Amino acid sequence: MGCGTLRRVPPLPFDPIREAGRQWERHWGAETAPPMEAVISIVRAQQIVVARLNAVLHGFGLTYSRYEALMLLFYSREGSLPLGKMGVRLQVHLTNVTKLVAALEARGLADRAPHPDDRRTTLASITPAGRDVAAAATHAVNAIDFGTAPLAPGALDGIIVPLRDLRRAAGDFADPE
Amino acid sequence: MGCGTLRRVPPLPFDPIREAGRQWERHWGAETAPPMEAVISIVRAQQIVVARLNAVLHGFGLTYSRYEALMLLFYSREGSLPLGKMGVRLQVHLTNVTKLVAALEARGLADRAPHPDDRRTTLASITPAGRDVAAAATHAVNAIDFGTAPLAPGALDGIIVPLRDLRRAAGDFADPE
Repeated sequence: MGCGTLRRVPPLPFDPIREAGRQWERHWGAETAPPMEAVISIVRAQQIVVARLNAVLHGFGLTYSRYEALMLLFYSREGSLPLGKMGVRLQVHLTNVTKLVAALEARGLADRAPHPDDRRTTLASITPAGRDVAAAATHAVNAIDFGTAPLAPGALDGIIVPLRDLRRAAGDFADPE
Repeated sequence: MGCGTLRRVPPLPFDPIREAGRQWERHWGAETAPPMEAVISIVRAQQIVVARLNAVLHGFGLTYSRYEALMLLFYSREGSLPLGKMGVRLQVHLTNVTKLVAALEARGLADRAPHPDDRRTTLASITPAGRDVAAAATHAVNAIDFGTAPLAPGALDGIIVPLRDLRRAAGDFADPE
């Protein structure tokens, strides 16, 4: 696997997403192409950046998903959160949060214990080793610009701003008035 | 599940990705925030749009991945492709292509047969019923703008153009000179 590339086959001689866009324009009308191209681009970009991040995070015993869970604990006020709240913030099912926290626990990066005020709730807490790994892994992913090469800050904003509108419209958050 | 929203919890009172960006700026330097925010935005946007598409495609016995595989056959010159070539175009492993095609076959949308010129290769072919479903499902996903609401064409271009640079740099394709 080369640096920054995840394919084991030669590049296609054409952009497959633009080619799909041309098919869409021809068969379904010109206005149908941009939404389709944007979606396939997002799906493919996700594969590329997550694979790049996983390659770096592997050295820390982490995957992108475990890293997200670890950073959530790292930035929590007390260093601990109920699993249910982690699921809401990570937007994954409770069963998946449980698996992620179990993986962190197996590596000594987090602990699980019953919530002191509500024993039906499980509280995950970051360990001192977890804090060290969180910081080291973050330096590593920041050093590769989170896998976004070759995009400059302006191009990144071009992605962040419209996707914020998408996320807001999907009910992820409500801006304070 | 409401229309256009996939959350079963109330919206957060703040944008969690912008909040993460503030943490990044504070702890790791201002230049580290945009790549991280762009990546988390892409990952979350992918969840949102794929869930919206799956909700529509479910009525056709399809998932987003099966739909992609079906459309690849639909647009192939002969209506059939070797599984290996489908894997390259869909950028998924051969085992996953085999599963996707088996799911299409189980619904009568595709057939599998040994390649006439090379019996070690399996050829997938779209059936007449597959063509009908491909067209009907495409009308349905186009009707919801591929799950990209509320984004306008200009915002979609703001996503498509930088992600094309990312995909090209990752070796997905080489522009013809």
